[in-house]
Amino acid sequence: MPDATVCGSMEALLFDVQGTATDFHSTVCREAVRITAGRCPHIDWADFVNRWRAEYFTVLDATDTTQGQWTTVHSVYRDALDRLLEEEGVTVLSDAEREDLALAWQRLEPWPDVIPGLDRLRARFTLATLSNADVSAVVNLSKRAGLRWDAIFTAEMAGAFKPDPAAYRTAAAYLGLAPSEIMMVASHKYDLRAAASLGFATAFVARPREYGPDAAADVAPEPSFDVNARDFLDLAARLGC
Amino acid sequence: MPDATVCGSMEALLFDVQGTATDFHSTVCREAVRITAGRCPHIDWADFVNRWRAEYFTVLDATDTTQGQWTTVHSVYRDALDRLLEEEGVTVLSDAEREDLALAWQRLEPWPDVIPGLDRLRARFTLATLSNADVSAVVNLSKRAGLRWDAIFTAEMAGAFKPDPAAYRTAAAYLGLAPSEIMMVASHKYDLRAAASLGFATAFVARPREYGPDAAADVAPEPSFDVNARDFLDLAARLGC
Repeated sequence: MPDATVCGSMEALLFDVQGTATDFHSTVCREAVRITAGRCPHIDWADFVNRWRAEYFTVLDATDTTQGQWTTVHSVYRDALDRLLEEEGVTVLSDAEREDLALAWQRLEPWPDVIPGLDRLRARFTLATLSNADVSAVVNLSKRAGLRWDAIFTAEMAGAFKPDPAAYRTAAAYLGLAPSEIMMVASHKYDLRAAASLGFATAFVARPREYGPDAAADVAPEPSFDVNARDFLDLAARLGC
Repeated sequence: MPDATVCGSMEALLFDVQGTATDFHSTVCREAVRITAGRCPHIDWADFVNRWRAEYFTVLDATDTTQGQWTTVHSVYRDALDRLLEEEGVTVLSDAEREDLALAWQRLEPWPDVIPGLDRLRARFTLATLSNADVSAVVNLSKRAGLRWDAIFTAEMAGAFKPDPAAYRTAAAYLGLAPSEIMMVASHKYDLRAAASLGFATAFVARPREYGPDAAADVAPEPSFDVNARDFLDLAARLGC
């Protein structure tokens, strides 16, 4: 049953990528196992990847983007990896291997519902990313995974990370649309609340496995969001596609 | 026969859109005939569209992008249209009709070789636009025409129009690539010369009908460009795709 109240005026959907469209936990864990090849048996990669992701958020929150100096998200992941590996006493990984592991964030794989969901949504809406990841990271992972966007927008283009209003406003300006004509789609409530405060419509997508099978993700629907969806196929159905 | 010398290090191709990938002259002429519906019999649309395009270049060249105020290309086309229609003494077109006609530049159709050419190039290279048109215009016309890009970059994102170096450098930064890993593809030599001066590889694509059947376009190959191609299929062949 379409959620008709939000459908009529909607022209474009903006998608968060890391977590919402892609399963970073599985991908990065698997890449860590592949690259370390048994040389770090004491590391619990399921936990390590979540600490790595948390470290990324800590650095992003502390980043001052007002000075005109842009920090690539790849360098944030790489620096955080080096710190965490030092804490773990890992010295067996070469510089090239650490770089390869940090680049796993550019090889993230989509959740199974994402490609068929986007295929249904594409006929009716302009589909774009709005990610905090670097443009190159989103381009590379989208091309690799076969994620077809009509446009890729990222924080790098705005010079400000979500939830800074500039990130959302830049995407709206590039689309030539009012916020009320755009729906932000994310599995992270802070992202949706920031978009909603600027007049964007919002769709929450539950990703119970975002942090792996053993960690709790917040998947509780909230009536303040225009749509609460189980996945991208459910989102398509709720938007009448 | 692939032009092997430039193939090895190439990761991405940047495409000009208006003229190189799309046939603006046919599209805008046809839209003008449709919208005016016989009410402007004294206007030679084939000539009018070329004057309109020339007026666009004149305004772009005179635009000072250093003041932080961005001029949308749509507004440039719209203002130029109003001036040209006034010169022609046309008063029969409503504001909505003029807006519709100016938006024809967002409905440009690709040359016949473009979609099959991009399909062949896509497997090997990252394909992105680098257009002076507004982001929304390139998004809209690409979606409408089925042009699949891995990313859309435009002058609007750099705050500077081609041939300003900032336009090319912004695209390279977003791709995370060196200029030597990127080939600029265009039917306009000024665009390629600007890219070449910054270290980009260059591919000239001949578009003899760019200004319609009765106007001469510069289609002479030049050895200073890395590739001189007849169309996008020939470009794919020369790049070994």
